[in-house]
Formats: sequence, structure tokens, C-alpha cells
Amino acid sequence: MTEVKIQNNDLVLICHRDKKYLKKIEENKAFNGKGGTLSFSDLIGNPFGKRYGEYEVYRPTLEDIIMFGVKRDTQIIYPKDAAFICLKLDIKYCSSILEVGTGSGALTIIFSNFIGPEGKIVTIEKEERHFRNAKKNIERFCQDRDVEVINCHVLEYGGSGFDSVFVDVREPWLYMDKVWGFVKESGTIGMIVPTTNQISEILKAFDDRGGFGDIEVIEILLRRYKTVSERIRPFDRMVAHTGYLIFARKLLK
Amino acid sequence: MTEVKIQNNDLVLICHRDKKYLKKIEENKAFNGKGGTLSFSDLIGNPFGKRYGEYEVYRPTLEDIIMFGVKRDTQIIYPKDAAFICLKLDIKYCSSILEVGTGSGALTIIFSNFIGPEGKIVTIEKEERHFRNAKKNIERFCQDRDVEVINCHVLEYGGSGFDSVFVDVREPWLYMDKVWGFVKESGTIGMIVPTTNQISEILKAFDDRGGFGDIEVIEILLRRYKTVSERIRPFDRMVAHTGYLIFARKLLK
Amino acid sequence: MTEVKIQNNDLVLICHRDKKYLKKIEENKAFNGKGGTLSFSDLIGNPFGKRYGEYEVYRPTLEDIIMFGVKRDTQIIYPKDAAFICLKLDIKYCSSILEVGTGSGALTIIFSNFIGPEGKIVTIEKEERHFRNAKKNIERFCQDRDVEVINCHVLEYGGSGFDSVFVDVREPWLYMDKVWGFVKESGTIGMIVPTTNQISEILKAFDDRGGFGDIEVIEILLRRYKTVSERIRPFDRMVAHTGYLIFARKLLK
Amino acid sequence: MTEVKIQNNDLVLICHRDKKYLKKIEENKAFNGKGGTLSFSDLIGNPFGKRYGEYEVYRPTLEDIIMFGVKRDTQIIYPKDAAFICLKLDIKYCSSILEVGTGSGALTIIFSNFIGPEGKIVTIEKEERHFRNAKKNIERFCQDRDVEVINCHVLEYGGSGFDSVFVDVREPWLYMDKVWGFVKESGTIGMIVPTTNQISEILKAFDDRGGFGDIEVIEILLRRYKTVSERIRPFDRMVAHTGYLIFARKLLK
Repeated sequence: MTEVKIQNNDLVLICHRDKKYLKKIEENKAFNGKGGTLSFSDLIGNPFGKRYGEYEVYRPTLEDIIMFGVKRDTQIIYPKDAAFICLKLDIKYCSSILEVGTGSGALTIIFSNFIGPEGKIVTIEKEERHFRNAKKNIERFCQDRDVEVINCHVLEYGGSGFDSVFVDVREPWLYMDKVWGFVKESGTIGMIVPTTNQISEILKAFDDRGGFGDIEVIEILLRRYKTVSERIRPFDRMVAHTGYLIFARKLLK
Repeated sequence: MTEVKIQNNDLVLICHRDKKYLKKIEENKAFNGKGGTLSFSDLIGNPFGKRYGEYEVYRPTLEDIIMFGVKRDTQIIYPKDAAFICLKLDIKYCSSILEVGTGSGALTIIFSNFIGPEGKIVTIEKEERHFRNAKKNIERFCQDRDVEVINCHVLEYGGSGFDSVFVDVREPWLYMDKVWGFVKESGTIGMIVPTTNQISEILKAFDDRGGFGDIEVIEILLRRYKTVSERIRPFDRMVAHTGYLIFARKLLK
Repeated sequence: MTEVKIQNNDLVLICHRDKKYLKKIEENKAFNGKGGTLSFSDLIGNPFGKRYGEYEVYRPTLEDIIMFGVKRDTQIIYPKDAAFICLKLDIKYCSSILEVGTGSGALTIIFSNFIGPEGKIVTIEKEERHFRNAKKNIERFCQDRDVEVINCHVLEYGGSGFDSVFVDVREPWLYMDKVWGFVKESGTIGMIVPTTNQISEILKAFDDRGGFGDIEVIEILLRRYKTVSERIRPFDRMVAHTGYLIFARKLLK
Repeated sequence: MTEVKIQNNDLVLICHRDKKYLKKIEENKAFNGKGGTLSFSDLIGNPFGKRYGEYEVYRPTLEDIIMFGVKRDTQIIYPKDAAFICLKLDIKYCSSILEVGTGSGALTIIFSNFIGPEGKIVTIEKEERHFRNAKKNIERFCQDRDVEVINCHVLEYGGSGFDSVFVDVREPWLYMDKVWGFVKESGTIGMIVPTTNQISEILKAFDDRGGFGDIEVIEILLRRYKTVSERIRPFDRMVAHTGYLIFARKLLK
């Protein structure tokens, strides 16, 4: 494996102390930050993963892209939740996934990361404003994957036979018939909601409609520790809540 | 997409109340549990995701395979941690990954789930007993992926140029030079350890050797909720600790 | 301060490895456990806080009494919650406290620990069975404090002017008028419920009735660590949920 | 019980939306905040626990005093931890307590709240600056209790026979002999430290010196929930770490 060098138009992650920036390399341009000016011409042809003056420059990971590259006009799904969702939905090379509620497209991009060229993602978003923003994010960061972004209401979408469906809308309990119909038998179903009242509504809708098995409600918490070897301790503050995750599988009677 | 029916030799997940079993369908055999006898001949040709008598039968997800199919002779890495590790290591369709410390092979199988036919995994395990067990698990559950399982000590392995390395051994700080050498510049590095004393040693070794940037120490906690709509509450007990996750990236000076 | 020795009729805490037992010293009797026979006559006249054969014998703390001495016929309030409740209710030397729902009397005993001879506790319990059990526990462990245990329904109790009220019943929202009436202006009000649905009902009742200010909903989590200096790590499992705590103060308009 | 009205020189807690202020009533003075001017003359003779214009005015609890009244020049011990410490140390009416490391005196004030006129607290602080500040806080908020504040190093203090000792210094492991000597047999011992490295040192010192039994290492986490009945959810962010609590009892061999 030969080492690939930084090239024009590459995305780079620039780190300075606790701050991180995702930038696109453009010849003759530069990054200006608290660590001084970093000329992009000085980077081109040099390796990723290297200290340049006060900066460290890395090849961005998917998480970097989500956290620092995706333009948000909605609350995004955090990496800790997104990673777990992928596992619970059983996302893999060649999965077909329907996402209801594209939001900013962050989760779409994460899904697309794990499917290969034979996989397929459809994501629908009813708000035109979110749709436009998400479409840009997805076009920018999932160039080579089969991702279809549709501006429609969940009730208007007629697809079916997906391996998995993920629902991130305010009132998922209103669309249980549709959600059920989107996936194959035994297909995996995931949802995220911020409040416990919504969990109640969803569980009630699962009961009322029937056809949902292996139901789970899960919360993922992430705690960061300071990285000083002689003073190991958690950071003083943490994100205490992002959302409750609900999972089920399509079940015939 | 046409519905695929249960076939001979398929893996199925059989659920009865809170219990789950991963079984291989063998004609003329049956599953005997608290819900009575479930004849496999009655399943063949019928759909996954369906109730059969008192049982629910699903197509197993990767998580089911890890939790109920992998034969363990070591502590396995939990799904909550494994999913997050995949994201932080930036595992994707065509990644090349080195795993140091195969254990039971559970994480190897999860890695293999997310890479496609162009990806590559090498996993090394020094204990012959673990190696043998892991090899069986991996052969059973990663048939169509490029996974190489090697019975050797980390100091004996001479590979390099991997996108990512994950280290699950007792004293990772002893092998910092090797670990650093395994990955490309900007390559992602992950470790898991159960104690805070080990975190200290690793952070000290990062400092002493140098060449590691973007260091993070993270703990993932998973809390499950009961699924009764009118009585939403966490389960009484939870897994309080699996391990501390340590991440870094290779950094040239 | 002269050292007080173990005497006949004293309560002692006997520890053997991870097990703890609360026992009353009775001459000519003995404790028989996995560490062998511990004759009580050998303890009398000797100090607390000493190793006797394989056993350690301590003077019991309040927590020991709650965890190992109180006879339970209901779920007790855990020490982690009880301690915090005392602080939020502002329990002190001369407080007057009403407890609605005595349960097994564990919290009553904790309250009585923190008030002195000038303080006062009334606790009411509608179930005669719980009342009888709690009365025995309270008589055993709060001998010298002013604690009144009453077998009545909350709607039958006509007291008022308490500094603080604590409510541990299934549907506190049904008794908001009573609860409000029990305490002085600015009096502290606390409740515990296991489910989020109950939190919703209580908050709604606070709104509907009015007269409740400084409302808080809080959860206390306790994580234990293993006590081996070179292997610091949390225990594998923990109590994940006991109850949600709700606090308010009486507020005139 | 007759209702006590707000009087000159009383402490009051003034709440405006999410903000809280602890103030002393002084005739002819006023509180000026975002809710406008609140004249103290208008409060005198009127009840606590009442809305005055945009403000709610309460009689301060101990927690209010700690959070909003104590002048801090060190990190204070949080109420969640302080309450639990009181329970584990078995603080009660008539306890005698030694505190090593007064800090700002917040914990001293909490201890004094739970002991009555027959209890006794000695608190020692080596830093004169902290000593002076703590002395003021303690004089202001524990007027009627037996609290002795001493400006000395732990090695200089010669007391003994206490029921309980609490140690909040940077390197408690250096003073294990002293700590052991301060308390009675079976006496309760507590410590708080921010890092896991310090836990290790303390546990090692317990082992090396001997004479410490029933050792526990505990962390208390507090999670707050929003108080909107139809949208129950935790706050977005929380305090993730204050300190690790270590408890033991004096044990003779």
C-alpha cells in the first residue's frame, strides 16, 4: 500500500488544541486560525497525519465529516447513537435502507458509509428547506453511493421491501401502517425520539397495530475522560441526553 | 425484491418471551424449548419474521450472531462498544484493518460485516486456544469476506500500511512501536481496557513514544427501558462496565 | 471519649467477605456462617470495629440498619435516594415531617436519624399489613424519637403546618390539594415514582392545581468501583433504576 | 404551628425563571434583577413561599445556602455527594465529626445541619486563605452549632475519638496513620478525590497500613429532567463528574 498524499480538493481535518475544522484543500488558499496561517500549497504533496506548525492535519473520518462538515439545519443524530443504530438495524454491505425524516442527512451519510456499491438508500424529508440542505450534504459526502433523496411526506411514499427502515419524525405513531409496509418480513425497524411521552405513544401504536416483535427501548450515554495519564477522570460536563432509541422487527402473525 | 423463505442450513433466531436462541435449520430436526417443540420442517419454505406457535422466528442480525451464535472463550466486546469502535476507526466498504488480540472473534465478525469484498482484515491472537475457537467462529460467520486469522504474538507480526488497528491485549503499552508501525499516516488506532490503571499506562506510552494525535478516552453506557407504554422506566439493573475505549491517530512530527 | 464495648442487646454488623448481617447480641447465642461459629459471649465486653476469627464486627450505621435490619414487605427507598431526599427536603435537627406512604418504614427511620428530640415525624400508611410491619421496624430502630405511625388513607389525615412532606404512593396526583395543605408556606415537598408516566401526571397536577414552585425532577445513580488498587474499575453490573424524585415548594399566589 | 413571616435580617431565596439568588433582608434596601425591583420593605411581615411581582421568594433550604450563599474559593462538594457522605458517615444528632480540609466550609455547614446542639464538629484547613473564607461562611451559616475551625496542617492536629472523619485533601494517602488515629474503633471514614489515580493510591495505603475495613469506592451521578408534563426528557447537558467517594471503617486486628 503506497502512502497517499494530500491533494488539491481533498478534505482535511485541521486540529489546534481542542478545536477541529474540516476544510477543503484549494490551491493558493489558506486556513487562518489561532495557530497562525496554514497555507494549503504547503500541504499539497505532503502526508496526512502530520504536524504542520501548530496544527495537526488528518484525513477526516466519517465522524469528522458528520461533526464538522455536515451543514445542519436540524438537530443531528450523534455518532454514539448513529453507530449503535447501524448495528441494531443490521446495516451491512448490500443493505437496502429507507430513512423517514432526512433531517440534515448526517445519518444518511453514515448509512452510506457502511453499504457498498450494491447497497441502496432512500431517504424522504417532507420539509423542503431540510430536503435542500440535506441533498447538498449528501451530494457532497456520499458521491459514490446509491442514495436517493426525496422531498415528500411519509404518507406519499410508496416503496416497500427494504431490509431496514429508520424513522426520525415527531409523531412516528401516526404512520405505523406505512412503516410496517416499508420493510420485508423480519426487517429491522428503528426510531429516535427525545421524550418519554413519545416512547409511550410508539409502544402503544406497536400494540394497537400489531406486527412488531422483538421491541427494545435503549439509551446510549457517552462519557469522555481527560487524557492526562497521572490524572485520569471524566470531563466535568457531558451531553446527558440526545434521544431514546426504539427498535423492532416486522412480524407476521 | 422477492421475499426469501427459510431454507435448509439457514440460521434463524428463535425468540420465546425474554429468551433468544440462534439455531441452524436442519431438516428433520427440531427446537425444544419452554414453548414446546418447533419442527424445522415446518419452517422450511415459510417466511422469517413470523410467529410459529409460541415462538417468533427471525432472520438473525449481526448482533444476534454475536450475542447468541459466537462461541466464547474470552470476554467479548459488547455491541454498544463494537458499533462505536467501527465508527471511530472509520471502518467502511474498502477498509483494511488489523486486529491485535482476536479473542473469540466477535469484533472481527463485526468488522467483516461493514467491509465489502474489497476490504481486508487481519487478526492476530497469541493464545492457540483462543485462536482455534476464534477461527471457527470467523469461518462460520464471515464466509465471504477477506479475513486472515493468524496465531502469533504481536511482536512477531510484520504487517504495515493498514487503515486502522484495534488492540485488545492486556498490556498494549508494551507494543506502542509496533502499533504505530502497523498503520498508515493518519491511520486510526483503537484500544479497549477494563481498568483505569491501564488507561494511565497507555496515555503515558503515547507520550513517551510520541507520534499519536487526537487522543480520546471514552466510555459507552447502554440503558434499557421496559417496553410497556403506560409504565416507561429503565430496567432495574444494567451492565455498568465493559471497558474503556481509547482512540488515537498516527501522527508524524 | 471512652471507648464503648459491645454489650448484651447491642446491634452488631457482622461482615464475612462480601456478605453482611445485622444481628442482636444475645448472651449464650452465636452467629453461624461460612466463617464458622461466632459466639456472642466472646464479643461482649470487647470492642466494635475488630476482626474476630474470619469475621469483622462493626457498630451498625444507619445504612446498615436500613439495608440489613429493616424487614421489608415493600420496595424500600435506596440510601442514595434517601440521603438526597433529606437534603432537598431540608431535614434538620428540629424539622417536622409528614410522610405519606410509610411502606416498610426505611425512609421514616432515616428521617428520624437526622431530627433530634425537638423534631417530629408523622407517617401514614393505608395498607394495614404494611402499617403493622413498618410500626415494628420503626419501634425497633427509632426508639428515642418522636415518630407517629398512623394507619389511615391520605384523604383521612387532617394534619397541617409541617415543614416538609414526602409522598410515596402510586398516584400522588390524586391528592395534590391535601399535599399542598399539609405544609407551611415555602414548605418542601418530595415524591418518588418509578415511571416517567407518573412524572407526567404529577407535573400536570402541579400545573392544574397551582401553588407549587421551584419544581425539579431528578434521578440519582450510584456506581460502585472495585477496591483493588492496581485494577480500578466499576463493578460489572449496577442498579440502573430505583425511582424518579420530584421536588417542589409550596407557593402562595 | 403559627406561620412565621419574613423579618428584617432573614435570609431569603429569590427565584426568577431559572435564576436563584440568596439575599439578606435589610430594611430600605431592594433586590434589582431582570424581573424588576423587589423592595425588601414590601417583604417584611409577609409570608415566605409567595410570588411577589415576577419573583418567587422562599425560605432558603440548606442546599440553597450551599449553592447560592457560601462564598467559594475552592471547588465545593456538591449536594448530591454531600448528602450521601452524611449517610455513609452515619452523621446524626449528637455525632462528633472531624473534617480534614475545610475548603470553603460547605460540607462543614451540611454536617452542622444534621447534628444538634449535642453534636460536635472540628474542621482543619492548612491554607490560611481558605481558612479565613471558610470561617466566615461557617460563622454566617452555623451560628448555633458547636463547630471549631482550625488553621493547621493535618499532621499538627492531635485530636482523637471522633465518630467520623472526612478527608478532602490532595494526597490523603500520606496521612493514613493520622486518619486512623482520629476515629474511634468502628468509626466511619470518608474521602473524596477527583481522579482514579488517587483512588489507587488510597487503596494501596489502606492495604499498606492495615486497619481499614468495609472499604467502598462510589460515584454518585445526578441527572435532571425537564419539568414539562407532555415532554419528559433529561436536560441536554449534565455535570458528569465531581469526585470519587471512598469509605472505610476503622478496624482493629
